[in-house]
Amino acid sequence: MAVAGLTSPSPAYSHRTTTRLRSSSQLSLSSTHLSCRLRRSFRPRNSSITCSVNQVAPVSVQKPEPKDKSECFGVFCQTYDLWAEEETRSWKKLINIAVSGAAGMISNHLLFKLASGEVFGPDQPIALKLLGSERSIQALEGVAMELEDSLYPLLREVSIGINPYEVFEDAEWALLIGAKPRGPGLERADLLDINGQIFSEQGKALNAVASRNVKVIVVGNPCNTNALICLKNAPNIPAKNFHALTRLDENRAKCQLALKAGVFYDKVSNMTIWGNHSTTQVPDFLNARINGLPVKEVIKDHKWLEEEFTEKVQKRGGVLIQKWGRSSAASTAVSIVDAIKSLITPTPEGDWFSSGVYSNGNQYGIAEGLVFSMPCRSKGDGDYELVKDVIFDDYLLKKITKTEAELLAEKRCVAHLTGEGIAFCDLPEDTMLPGEM
Amino acid sequence: MAVAGLTSPSPAYSHRTTTRLRSSSQLSLSSTHLSCRLRRSFRPRNSSITCSVNQVAPVSVQKPEPKDKSECFGVFCQTYDLWAEEETRSWKKLINIAVSGAAGMISNHLLFKLASGEVFGPDQPIALKLLGSERSIQALEGVAMELEDSLYPLLREVSIGINPYEVFEDAEWALLIGAKPRGPGLERADLLDINGQIFSEQGKALNAVASRNVKVIVVGNPCNTNALICLKNAPNIPAKNFHALTRLDENRAKCQLALKAGVFYDKVSNMTIWGNHSTTQVPDFLNARINGLPVKEVIKDHKWLEEEFTEKVQKRGGVLIQKWGRSSAASTAVSIVDAIKSLITPTPEGDWFSSGVYSNGNQYGIAEGLVFSMPCRSKGDGDYELVKDVIFDDYLLKKITKTEAELLAEKRCVAHLTGEGIAFCDLPEDTMLPGEM
Repeated sequence: MAVAGLTSPSPAYSHRTTTRLRSSSQLSLSSTHLSCRLRRSFRPRNSSITCSVNQVAPVSVQKPEPKDKSECFGVFCQTYDLWAEEETRSWKKLINIAVSGAAGMISNHLLFKLASGEVFGPDQPIALKLLGSERSIQALEGVAMELEDSLYPLLREVSIGINPYEVFEDAEWALLIGAKPRGPGLERADLLDINGQIFSEQGKALNAVASRNVKVIVVGNPCNTNALICLKNAPNIPAKNFHALTRLDENRAKCQLALKAGVFYDKVSNMTIWGNHSTTQVPDFLNARINGLPVKEVIKDHKWLEEEFTEKVQKRGGVLIQKWGRSSAASTAVSIVDAIKSLITPTPEGDWFSSGVYSNGNQYGIAEGLVFSMPCRSKGDGDYELVKDVIFDDYLLKKITKTEAELLAEKRCVAHLTGEGIAFCDLPEDTMLPGEM
Repeated sequence: MAVAGLTSPSPAYSHRTTTRLRSSSQLSLSSTHLSCRLRRSFRPRNSSITCSVNQVAPVSVQKPEPKDKSECFGVFCQTYDLWAEEETRSWKKLINIAVSGAAGMISNHLLFKLASGEVFGPDQPIALKLLGSERSIQALEGVAMELEDSLYPLLREVSIGINPYEVFEDAEWALLIGAKPRGPGLERADLLDINGQIFSEQGKALNAVASRNVKVIVVGNPCNTNALICLKNAPNIPAKNFHALTRLDENRAKCQLALKAGVFYDKVSNMTIWGNHSTTQVPDFLNARINGLPVKEVIKDHKWLEEEFTEKVQKRGGVLIQKWGRSSAASTAVSIVDAIKSLITPTPEGDWFSSGVYSNGNQYGIAEGLVFSMPCRSKGDGDYELVKDVIFDDYLLKKITKTEAELLAEKRCVAHLTGEGIAFCDLPEDTMLPGEM
C-alpha cells in the first residue's frame, strides 16, 4: 500500500489500519507509515478526512494474542484500498456491525444477508464483528470461513472474539442475538436473571467502546427486559437507540390476517405489536388495515379476531418446531433484516412498523421506563418517531394494560441489574412464547 | 377479482389461475370466469397476452387431494393481480423455480435468498416449487410457513410436493439439491447407483413437464454424473442447460489464492475448476489471475501451488465440519446463487466462471459425453459459451486427464441409467470430497 500524506490529492481510502495498530501495540514496532481514511457518515452523506499512524510489525515477531482479543479472520486481515478502485470509490464509508450469538442458527442466516448487501445496499461496505463464547469460538471460526468462501465484495472485515469490550469497538449497529437458551426447568424469571447479567455486561461494553450513536437491536430473550437492562447500563448512548425485536410477531400477525381475509400478505399494513415479546403481547387488529380498510371492516368474524388471532400468531413458533424440528431461525433473521431496513429506509406514507422501544415520553399513557413494543415511523435516518394517529378501544386497552403489568413486573425482577435497587420477582406465570429459545 | 375479457384495455395480470384450474379439475365446478395473463419472457423482454378459463370451485366442496399432488401452501394459495398495482405492474413475468431437497439445510439458506430478490432482482416475482419426500413433507410445511412469515413481496407462489412430475411442471429453473447423503459405509460407487436412480427419475420428470428451456443445476452428489444421468433422461431439453455445481470449489480456490498472495479475494479472477466435483478436481492456477497478472507471477512459491493449494481447496469442507460441526450449507447456498447469477448477468470483460457442463463440442480435447467442469462465459441470457483463450501445461494436462478418467469410469458405472448398456463399475478409490454429504 502506498504511503499517502495529508496533502495527497487522492488520499488512500484504506482499511484495517486500526486493527493493525491495535494488534501490534504490544510488539516491537519496526515500520511506520501514515495512511488516511475518507470518512463518510452513513446518512446524511458528508465527508471529512482523518488520518492515523499505521505501525506495521514484521510478521516474524508476532506473538499469539491473548484469547479474549478480538481478531481479524483469514482473508479479512488483508489491507485493501477502496479508494483506488473504480468500482468501490463511490461506496459509502465502511460500517461496523457487531453480532452476538454469532455462531448460532439465527446469525447463520443473518450474517450472510448482511454480507450480501441485501440489508444496507450495494454501495455500503461492512465489517462484521462477531461475538461468541469460549465454547463457541471454534464454531465462530467456521462461520468466518464460510463468509470467506462466499467472496462477498461488500464484506471487507470479519473479526471474531469473546470479549464484548473488544468486539463492540466502534460498532454502529449491535445485533444482540446471543442469550442463554431456555433449558429444561428454566422459566422466564430464571432467564431474566441469567440473561440479564449478559445484557448488563454488554450494555456496559457498548457504553464504553461502541459508536456514540450505535443502534442496538436485542433479539435474545426475554428481549424487552434485556434491552431495558442493556440501555440502563449504557447511559452515554441515547435510550432511543435500543430496540427489542417484535418484528417477527408483526410479520406473523400480518400473515395470519392475510390468510383469514383471503388476500396476499402485501395487502396488510399498519400492524402494531404492543408490549412484551411474550404471550401477553398484543397484535393490534383495531388499527391494522387490509387493502387500506380497517381490519374489522374486512374480517367480519370479530370473534376470531378477539379469540383466535392472537393465539395463532403466538403459537406459530411452536407449530413450526413440531413441523420442522427446529426453531424459526430463517424467518427470525428475515425479521431482523426488516427491523434494520425499517430504520434506514423512509417508512411508506401512512404505514408504520413495530419495535420494542423505550417508553419514556410516549403519548399513549404507557408507563415510562419500559421497553415496550409500539408503532414507529422512520425518516430512514436510523431514528424513529412514535405514531400519533392510533385509536384504542376497551379490548385493546385491557390487553395493553396486561402486557404493561408484565413488563413492570419483569422490571422489578431485574432492579439489581438496572441500578434501581433490590430486585423483587413476582412473575405470576411463564409467558415464554411457544417455540422460543 | 374483476372479470377481464380479451378486449379489456387493462387485462388482469392474475396468478394462481393454473393451480386453481388444476386443483379443481376433479371437483364439481360451479363458477367460471375468464382471466388474462400478461406473458413476458424472461430475457429479452417482450410481451404477449394469453388467456385461460379460470374455473373456481366453492370452498365447501373441496376434498383433500391425493398426497403426491403438488399443492400451493397457505397464503400462497391466494389470488392476486400484479397488473392492478402501481408497484408490481412493471414487474417481469413470474418464473417458476423448482428446488429438490427443499427441507434440507442448503435449501433453508437458498430459498430465502431466492425469495428476497437477491438472485433474480427486485422486479422478478417468483414461484417456488418445493420437492421433498414422504419423510420430509412435514419439514417442508415448516419451510413454507417460514417463507409465509417472511412476507417477501416478490415471492408469489409456494407449492410443496413429493412427486417430481407435479413439482417440476413449467419450471424454468430446477435446482436439484436433494440426494441421499453418504451414510456410513457408502462410497462413491454406492452413491452413484442410489442417487443415479433419483436423478434418472428427475430427468424424466423434467423432460415430461418442465419448461422446454429449463436450466438445471445439480448440487446433490456425485453431482457431475448425476447431472449426466439427468440430462440423458431428458432428451427434449438441450443438454447445454444442465450444470453440475463446482462454484463452491471455485470460490474456495479464489479465497485460498488471495490468502496466499496477501490480497483481498476480489483481486482473484479467471479461476477454473476442471473436471469432477471430487478429489480429482483441478483448481487451475495456470490460467487464474491475481490483480490481472498470472498467479505464478504473483505467488512465487510454485511448490505450494503444485503441492498444497489443491488440497487446501478440497479439505475446506472437512475443516469446516471440524470447526462448526455441520457441513457448509450457507456457503454452498451462496455458490448456487453465484452460479445462477453468472448465467443471468453478463460475465465481466476478460473474466469467466466454472460450471460442470456437457462436454460435447468442447475445444479442449476433453472426452465427449461427460459433465465436466470448464471455464464459461455468459451474455446473461441463461446460456453460456466455453472460454477459448485458456492455456495448458504438462502439469495441468496430467491433472485434467486424471479427473477425465474418473468421470469416464463413473459414466461406465451408470450406463444402466443413461441408456448406454450394461453398467461396469471399477472406480479405483473413494474420491468424495471431505465434508461432503
